Amino acid sequence: MGSSSSKAMPLPSIRRLPMYLRFLKQLNNRGRQVVSCTYIARELSVVSTQVRKDFAITGIVGKPKVGYDVPALVSAIEKFLGWNGSRDAFVVGVGGLGSALMGYEGFTEYGLNIVAGFDIDPAKVGQPMHGKMVHPLERLPEMVSHTKVLIGIITVPAKAAQEVARLMVGSGIRAIWNYAPVALEVPDSVVVENMNLSASLAVLSSRLEEVLGRHHRQRD
Amino acid sequence: MGSSSSKAMPLPSIRRLPMYLRFLKQLNNRGRQVVSCTYIARELSVVSTQVRKDFAITGIVGKPKVGYDVPALVSAIEKFLGWNGSRDAFVVGVGGLGSALMGYEGFTEYGLNIVAGFDIDPAKVGQPMHGKMVHPLERLPEMVSHTKVLIGIITVPAKAAQEVARLMVGSGIRAIWNYAPVALEVPDSVVVENMNLSASLAVLSSRLEEVLGRHHRQRD
Repeated sequence: MGSSSSKAMPLPSIRRLPMYLRFLKQLNNRGRQVVSCTYIARELSVVSTQVRKDFAITGIVGKPKVGYDVPALVSAIEKFLGWNGSRDAFVVGVGGLGSALMGYEGFTEYGLNIVAGFDIDPAKVGQPMHGKMVHPLERLPEMVSHTKVLIGIITVPAKAAQEVARLMVGSGIRAIWNYAPVALEVPDSVVVENMNLSASLAVLSSRLEEVLGRHHRQRD
Repeated sequence: MGSSSSKAMPLPSIRRLPMYLRFLKQLNNRGRQVVSCTYIARELSVVSTQVRKDFAITGIVGKPKVGYDVPALVSAIEKFLGWNGSRDAFVVGVGGLGSALMGYEGFTEYGLNIVAGFDIDPAKVGQPMHGKMVHPLERLPEMVSHTKVLIGIITVPAKAAQEVARLMVGSGIRAIWNYAPVALEVPDSVVVENMNLSASLAVLSSRLEEVLGRHHRQRD
């Protein structure tokens, strides 16, 4: 399966894998060796056949009437997600959000290790932030080339995001986690995953207006 | 339209509103009075008929062959989203992510004002964080009651999230922005919007594995 088929990947299944992984690691820590789809489905409020399908994308198959080997399942999911080792990432744009991500320790659980930040603000470059160095943006190509970092996180303002994406792609970055509220154009060989805080907040706010009954006059 | 119809809301349209709003505010600042769907569509790489449909959910209608009044359009979108005034919010769980959100100034653009944090860690409660006070979690009901805050942001670990949601709902919170990687159960009168960082990172990571060619053997 090549990169051109990425749009056919079962995204809802993939999005559920971290939830399974967390649960399976707990079972593993408690010394449980074998688990059934039925048990997982009940504990996580998912449909049992869905659990089986979700696991199948990692290539693992359970034994009928026995279930899955827990350590093997943990390993298969981690390998599928590339979370079996630590994966380094650079953050470009160390304002409020970028700085927050650099300081967030929860990513290590998902094999993501933010190793440095980049910015154009002279007041920020050359300074450590949460123990990681902030470099001038123009050094990104050289740093990507030296370190072979494949993941770039974009936390610059919307108007600067496409230019940063272009610089990342030109430097050798292969996966962009985009927090800027714009659609990025990149080649097929590069993947983009958007985390759009403003879009999510728009849904929350408008649904709140609705439950508060404030959309009535506008919408009828 | 009551709360029970919230599932019928056009979510993709709502998610695009912040992008339009940002662009329209720029036009407004440059003194532009009237704008057409065609122009907006071209500038933002959206289909023109989609722009018209997206705006229609706010209740505003353009004039044929003239377009939309820019200030009226900004106002209609802001009103629809409830972003025309500032909306206060509490954060529960001021670990890495919660602290980051408390310090992030970008939310004010979207009318969201985080006014305080809550936690169970004695080392954190009673201390200001990014200029906002962190209160003990047991004070949440009293604080919600006093302040009439309607939005709660959950940034506690997965295993504590449902209990925090229950406490929020019992206190009078009507909208929950959930960053914990679990599905929350709440009454119909309360809205939940999930921001699942681990799910997004799972999609990014697995697609990166795919473009790097590492899924071949497992998936065939």
